[in-house]
Amino acid sequence: MKIIVVGASGTMGSYLSNVFEKDHEVIRTDRSNADFPLDITSTESIEKMYRKVGAFDALISTAGPTYVGPWKNLNDAAFRKGVEGKMMGQINLVLIGQHYINAGGSFTLITGALTHEPQKNFANASAANAAVEGFVRAAAIELEKGIRINAVSPTVIENSPQYFPFFPGEIPVTMKQLEYGFRKSVFGAHTGQIIKPY
Amino acid sequence: MKIIVVGASGTMGSYLSNVFEKDHEVIRTDRSNADFPLDITSTESIEKMYRKVGAFDALISTAGPTYVGPWKNLNDAAFRKGVEGKMMGQINLVLIGQHYINAGGSFTLITGALTHEPQKNFANASAANAAVEGFVRAAAIELEKGIRINAVSPTVIENSPQYFPFFPGEIPVTMKQLEYGFRKSVFGAHTGQIIKPY
Repeated sequence: MKIIVVGASGTMGSYLSNVFEKDHEVIRTDRSNADFPLDITSTESIEKMYRKVGAFDALISTAGPTYVGPWKNLNDAAFRKGVEGKMMGQINLVLIGQHYINAGGSFTLITGALTHEPQKNFANASAANAAVEGFVRAAAIELEKGIRINAVSPTVIENSPQYFPFFPGEIPVTMKQLEYGFRKSVFGAHTGQIIKPY
Repeated sequence: MKIIVVGASGTMGSYLSNVFEKDHEVIRTDRSNADFPLDITSTESIEKMYRKVGAFDALISTAGPTYVGPWKNLNDAAFRKGVEGKMMGQINLVLIGQHYINAGGSFTLITGALTHEPQKNFANASAANAAVEGFVRAAAIELEKGIRINAVSPTVIENSPQYFPFFPGEIPVTMKQLEYGFRKSVFGAHTGQIIKPY
């Protein structure tokens, strides 16, 4: 299977790339990748990446820039970070990628527990996550040729301890659990599902 | 109570304005209102409206422009209708309005069942609704001075029969049910809730 990993140099993306690479062809892409550079906030960059990759079987997105910070600084401009990044970036990966993916392929996007379990400083992520989840459910009934779409929604992940103080009481999701979540989407038959790997 | 109704000339807005006007001071606002014109896609327009209205106790939003149409025509540009309209329009009503609303006041936004019950042609609304709901839950733990925020999430409403064919099997929400939903938010003590008035 030919699998594109978006955000491949990040904490989640590098872990998942290494894991899936054992049995599959993995195309690593992110903003600074030498072979497959990708800026998800640009539809031109997304098109260019897909044209270069060619036909593929699965896309795994781990890219989710959002504004994190005090509510008092959250205005329209700050909110755009999550709108253009985690939300429209991932939505455009699907709207454009549907024309390049093989029949029966799958898109797996990343959201997070903040959709339903807000924490202070993360309102932008709550909205962006929720938007992606709403989109996933809607896209699942629209995509053709057996193309599937799901989201994986972890809580804070064990390899990002810098976020633990912001998520009091949240049991960190292990990297192995995260991997299982993506496996369920990529190799299962689900579509339109929000997979909570915990 | 001084209540701002956004989208006051629309199907929901005019009904709710007439109902609440019996016992409260209602400020009707929408794009073409002579006294309180409002374009929710413009932060400048929102600021201007709030400055003209002055202190108020509740805002009811019934404004939700989104792209409705075939999936094949849904691209980044089309998606922006819901992003700028129903999503950021309503979010900015809160981010800006929190500086004008009285302590103990409330914001009530409009979403819809499409968040969890997608229908063909409405993926943009599913994402915008979901984003607003995620935001509502997050804003509820950030807003100060006892300011509350909720969303009312109806299915298709009885006074918009033109939408019935797009919502097979959805039992229309009556205008009275819709009114009850908004009453629950404005006059109750709830915050961070998605109120389903059915």
